[in-house]
Amino acid sequence: VTVSNQWIRRVLAYLRRQPAATRSELIEGTGLNPACISITITALLKAGVLQQSGEVHGQSGRKRQVFRLSPEAALLVAVDLEGTSVRVGLTNFLVDIRYRWEERVSFRCELTTEDLIRGIGHVLGGLTEAERGRVLAVGVAHTGIVDARGRVTAVNLGWSDFPLEEELPKRLPVPVFFDRSGNCKILAERWNGVAQQSDNCVYVLAGIGIGMAAFVDGHLLPAEHRLGGEFGHLTIDPGAADRCQCGKRGCLEAIISSPNIVRQYLALCGHVAEAESFPADGVYAAARAGDGAARQVVARVAACLGLGLSHVVTLLNPDLVILGGDLIAGQDLLIPGIRAELGRHCLPQFLKDLEVKASPLGLDSGLRGAASLAFRGALENPQLLAKLVGAARA
Amino acid sequence: VTVSNQWIRRVLAYLRRQPAATRSELIEGTGLNPACISITITALLKAGVLQQSGEVHGQSGRKRQVFRLSPEAALLVAVDLEGTSVRVGLTNFLVDIRYRWEERVSFRCELTTEDLIRGIGHVLGGLTEAERGRVLAVGVAHTGIVDARGRVTAVNLGWSDFPLEEELPKRLPVPVFFDRSGNCKILAERWNGVAQQSDNCVYVLAGIGIGMAAFVDGHLLPAEHRLGGEFGHLTIDPGAADRCQCGKRGCLEAIISSPNIVRQYLALCGHVAEAESFPADGVYAAARAGDGAARQVVARVAACLGLGLSHVVTLLNPDLVILGGDLIAGQDLLIPGIRAELGRHCLPQFLKDLEVKASPLGLDSGLRGAASLAFRGALENPQLLAKLVGAARA
Repeated sequence: VTVSNQWIRRVLAYLRRQPAATRSELIEGTGLNPACISITITALLKAGVLQQSGEVHGQSGRKRQVFRLSPEAALLVAVDLEGTSVRVGLTNFLVDIRYRWEERVSFRCELTTEDLIRGIGHVLGGLTEAERGRVLAVGVAHTGIVDARGRVTAVNLGWSDFPLEEELPKRLPVPVFFDRSGNCKILAERWNGVAQQSDNCVYVLAGIGIGMAAFVDGHLLPAEHRLGGEFGHLTIDPGAADRCQCGKRGCLEAIISSPNIVRQYLALCGHVAEAESFPADGVYAAARAGDGAARQVVARVAACLGLGLSHVVTLLNPDLVILGGDLIAGQDLLIPGIRAELGRHCLPQFLKDLEVKASPLGLDSGLRGAASLAFRGALENPQLLAKLVGAARA
Repeated sequence: VTVSNQWIRRVLAYLRRQPAATRSELIEGTGLNPACISITITALLKAGVLQQSGEVHGQSGRKRQVFRLSPEAALLVAVDLEGTSVRVGLTNFLVDIRYRWEERVSFRCELTTEDLIRGIGHVLGGLTEAERGRVLAVGVAHTGIVDARGRVTAVNLGWSDFPLEEELPKRLPVPVFFDRSGNCKILAERWNGVAQQSDNCVYVLAGIGIGMAAFVDGHLLPAEHRLGGEFGHLTIDPGAADRCQCGKRGCLEAIISSPNIVRQYLALCGHVAEAESFPADGVYAAARAGDGAARQVVARVAACLGLGLSHVVTLLNPDLVILGGDLIAGQDLLIPGIRAELGRHCLPQFLKDLEVKASPLGLDSGLRGAASLAFRGALENPQLLAKLVGAARA
């Protein structure tokens, strides 16, 4: 019997979230039977995708081998298009970042395919021929909304129906996987961040726009390439004067995105600074210093974010809410307000085991997320699995 | 090679939602390879779980056999505990109801395990010994909230931490599967109702309480036995005076549940009728007759339900919203108002392919749903699969 792609997928997906595992942990964790696990381990060791990593000695006196993913089994390219920067990274198979390149995008100027190719070129430029051969796939994390044909509309990149998924793959020698920033970032949290133990978690990020992603019962929701999780466009305050860039009134985004936090603060305190040159963390700093206007804005942001999150909690029952993007800078001010609001709007059953935490991955979460997306995409792609494991299979 | 439970599960789960299928449709629909499908078809035909159902003649001139589930492969018992009745039904393997028994529950008097056993006894009483042997499982659809130990709190049944999942199985000779009404009803819609073509649908029902269930990318959400989808406890109007029985203000349930619809109507028009003796469809009838107070209440119900649904649509992006329970009686009045509200609060991308429909299954949806739950549970239970297919397997 030769190893099947399904077995390989299950073993790699399981080990992705574990530092290491014994044979019996692999059997339990993947649901595969002992014979399948043995065949798969043998093939993956032979291909250098798995490595033996010491032994454990059990109470019975029996030694058990421990396996883990080989960090150097492949290289992954990560592209993070959140905010107003293009960040490109090269990671190993465990999505540890080896090399970074970053360039600022002029706000609302259209980023081109050429710009992306140049950025990826910078990262691949320093590789030897042999290293290039080990590049498995590219993952791209982007903001905005994707249509059924893979065209992206994203304000921060100046894109309106930009044919990202059509153009970029034509110019690259390895497969490219695309997803929205929120989905990529929650993948990174599940692999390397605060959500390693959670199958039911929600990630909310604020910046120029708002992003959300959720795992429910271990499934990313909704599946890649389906619109959903438009947390920023929940109508939170139908009577509010704040108009969203989508045209509606009362959207959460019109209250809690970074430019809107700054807008509200400047309006309240009569400052004449340009909103675009004033960062949202300036408002958090002012609130910490006791500035009344800043405190008022931060309280409204926490209340509206808390009400929006109460809807998500009441519908999906996560055990963990992760705050990302510019919300991280305000975590000390926002989390108590969010918790108070959740207490006001959620049934106690939902709150018992619910944690609200800021992402610990910081600026790297986008790159790690994009690399995680590439890893995940590679598992589903028979050609890439063949490239990864091929030699050992024949 | 003997047939595996996984192959049987996939074939039965696929055929459950198809009237019939050819061998190549089974291969495509289950993702199993031709050899596995052949082994599985042979075993299921031999066990009488599948039957051949004619042939199709293709353009190539080749005849292809068509297979479907045998209606008499097994019997299922369905228990529906929605509202203030206990309904028990006996269905065949296709969840067609063969026999029904119904008893009213005194509102807020505690329903006992004894009452349930008596109801199930009525349904099983008329069966021959051989027929009893073909009863595979019992499905129970109930309202309320379940804790981690399977204890149910449900106002309509007078239950507070009632140990349903512990008590009932002790008294029955076949396995019992439990789930909340909303989840059961959406299963029925996916199998027999309006959601046969939809992997992304939401079911909302109103009665004494509010229920919700959702399929996202073909997964029931959240999984059985996890709290979630508490649509009725979304805070829709934080400033509202309406107090919910959960203690909060502004819950959707406090505005759109049937007793609350009647309460608002009686308060507006100064009637002194007892709310419990006045049905919600009386309010719909009055609105159709032009009664101003009734129209005002119906407009508020549609607006609040529409706003609540806009949150669900914005987060989950379903292609179908199904209205159930007492909402069915008001569908002509509610659906236009709901659609208008969705248009006000959702991005146009979410509305393009979204349908809002009333459930066509009516009173039987609970029984069919409970039977569907039993079917679904049986597929996951190795003992029951062995009972169903056992003879053919050895």
